[in-house]
Amino acid sequence: MDLEFLHSLAQPATTKIVLCSLDGLGGLPEPRTRKSELETARIPTLHALAGRSACGLLRHVGPGITPGSGPGHLGLFGYDPLRFPVGRGVLEALGIDFELQAGDVAARGNFCTVDARGAITDRRAGRIGTDLCVRLCDRLRTIRLEGVELLVEPVKEHRFVLVLRGAGLSGRLSETDPQQLGVPPLPVSALVPEAERTAALVNAFVEAARPILRDASPANMLLLRGFDQRPHLPLFPDTFRLRAAAVAAYPMYRGLSRLVGMDVLKTGGTFAEEIDTLEQQWAHYDFFFLHYKDTDKAGEDGDFDAKVAALERFDALLPRVLALRPDVLAISGDHATPSILKGHGWQGVPALISSPYCGDDLVSRFTERDCASGSLGVMPAQDLMPLLMANALRFTKYGA
Amino acid sequence: MDLEFLHSLAQPATTKIVLCSLDGLGGLPEPRTRKSELETARIPTLHALAGRSACGLLRHVGPGITPGSGPGHLGLFGYDPLRFPVGRGVLEALGIDFELQAGDVAARGNFCTVDARGAITDRRAGRIGTDLCVRLCDRLRTIRLEGVELLVEPVKEHRFVLVLRGAGLSGRLSETDPQQLGVPPLPVSALVPEAERTAALVNAFVEAARPILRDASPANMLLLRGFDQRPHLPLFPDTFRLRAAAVAAYPMYRGLSRLVGMDVLKTGGTFAEEIDTLEQQWAHYDFFFLHYKDTDKAGEDGDFDAKVAALERFDALLPRVLALRPDVLAISGDHATPSILKGHGWQGVPALISSPYCGDDLVSRFTERDCASGSLGVMPAQDLMPLLMANALRFTKYGA
Repeated sequence: MDLEFLHSLAQPATTKIVLCSLDGLGGLPEPRTRKSELETARIPTLHALAGRSACGLLRHVGPGITPGSGPGHLGLFGYDPLRFPVGRGVLEALGIDFELQAGDVAARGNFCTVDARGAITDRRAGRIGTDLCVRLCDRLRTIRLEGVELLVEPVKEHRFVLVLRGAGLSGRLSETDPQQLGVPPLPVSALVPEAERTAALVNAFVEAARPILRDASPANMLLLRGFDQRPHLPLFPDTFRLRAAAVAAYPMYRGLSRLVGMDVLKTGGTFAEEIDTLEQQWAHYDFFFLHYKDTDKAGEDGDFDAKVAALERFDALLPRVLALRPDVLAISGDHATPSILKGHGWQGVPALISSPYCGDDLVSRFTERDCASGSLGVMPAQDLMPLLMANALRFTKYGA
Repeated sequence: MDLEFLHSLAQPATTKIVLCSLDGLGGLPEPRTRKSELETARIPTLHALAGRSACGLLRHVGPGITPGSGPGHLGLFGYDPLRFPVGRGVLEALGIDFELQAGDVAARGNFCTVDARGAITDRRAGRIGTDLCVRLCDRLRTIRLEGVELLVEPVKEHRFVLVLRGAGLSGRLSETDPQQLGVPPLPVSALVPEAERTAALVNAFVEAARPILRDASPANMLLLRGFDQRPHLPLFPDTFRLRAAAVAAYPMYRGLSRLVGMDVLKTGGTFAEEIDTLEQQWAHYDFFFLHYKDTDKAGEDGDFDAKVAALERFDALLPRVLALRPDVLAISGDHATPSILKGHGWQGVPALISSPYCGDDLVSRFTERDCASGSLGVMPAQDLMPLLMANALRFTKYGA
């Protein structure tokens, strides 16, 4: 549904909503036991909550589409991820807590290896250490160009972020990464006439970088891709008329929350510390986005037992969230990260909505298989927010 | 989802996909036993496969809409049948394995009976025998018109196909069939200015046919409808980056597969021979569309027991498909053909997806009732292909 339409229905109330995202929550059965991570874990609090909630499966982008963390969370926040794409460079900047300003153009950078003729021999420069990446970024920071501020930030291993700051820039640029070996990096070209000056600036930056990196083999050249500016998103607090706060320890999720206009709260690095923050700030907000990272990390590592343990740690802390008595509590995730896939997956993500008005269903276990037959059905993630608003009695009737 | 978007996610892999379409698969309970054809049949292999698959129901066009074989299969192939309509004349030509060239205009023809004043008294000429239809088509082939090649092909009983071949033709024409008795056939008129020459050619053909058929009562006149040209469809192998082959004995399905760009393999007329072909060609393709016709034929005849038997014959041969160990196997159909309806129906069609990453559900029987509570839910048929691509690990992540 259109966000303007939803906005037109939003009304003030004193109810409180907590949206809890277990990153990479959805899983798949382990072939030996034929049980998924959720089916294996001892999670009595989640199962009991499912027993008095409306349950279902969320699909964040579309059937068969594996969402990145950006699209996955935008879906949870009520945005159609296909209508509001966020560029790779922007996500990379958000991931290091870089405060992108309106108009900034961000790109994902890779250090790479080129041979004597300039042809790429390794697109990731042998995955150099992060310490070397930091030193090479320092070198790149010496580059000065007329009419633009250049910001270079190391990320991890061979990855860095380039940000161009100034008036009249455009992110509609082609990429320098040819995505293959044996050819030189491509010059950037403007995809629209307004981007021509930005293209010239980026090409000048690359030319200035070439002599600076020449002696730094294997990281003797760089590749740039995913040029983009901060997208113009309708702001979450305005759309839903909610004082909204994000409690998330990881930079990427802090950045995404900031992108949609939530207050990003200062918090510690553990989930227990995140709940401390939630408790301390409880009086000050109507809506809390609470992020739990451990499930995704274990899934990405292909560590089934670690994901089970991460679910059990979450379950053990969940009573502290329940003790705050939110009017509406939703528990789901931004995408599946099945341990047997060792990465994000397209599978539906279990979801529950608990409120006095959620309408119980027959589901009494919070698992993929059980939630598949819940009363929420298999639904697009962006439909979750309207349901939370309704359960919080924060939407008026449509039509008389 | 947009096919261009799906194309942007497709990546190379070595996995193999088999999409098995049981024509007219879906059924309805027989009133006496209250069991459907699938619920009555002994199909142990299908039930066991459902027990380790993701199950659901496919809807090919929309709720309450009964699909023809064209839209039904286009849905299975990932196309929105409402966005990619295929004209009646084109389907009729495909149905007799006629190789329509780009620009050809095809129409469905009926021989009909007219009285002395030229008014229609039987729109189907008493369903004359096919042998007579063949002889009358031979007569029509003697008609010559300036600037266009005319091709007349008998189909069955009173039905034939007319194809106009030449430069600058258009299929945007009205029909000659008034769809009622007591009035004469209508002249064809152009629905767009570019079609005026084609309209004149068709009217000249009809006028030339009149004296040729005068003595052939009850088949003493003809009606033409469903003028259309081959639609411009994005090609299936390009869209999904798959080497794709169709194994189908019946002309209509061979034609539809050719329309979307699949290689249509030479095969024998029985399902066992189709599986021979599948085995022989296994190494050469990434994707196989395997068509089974018998279920639909029995359903159209209203023969419940014959449809049950057709399902059992399929089940008995299914182990040969499983023995090939496809990475992804989907089993569904192009529409329902419930025996008690004696024709196509709008009911959901059972579907299963089997792969290491399909995510088992609680369904353990491959029936309409059981699949209704599967993890795929009730889904548009065109969402099946993206799921098969995902399960074959042939889609990259969307967004970082």
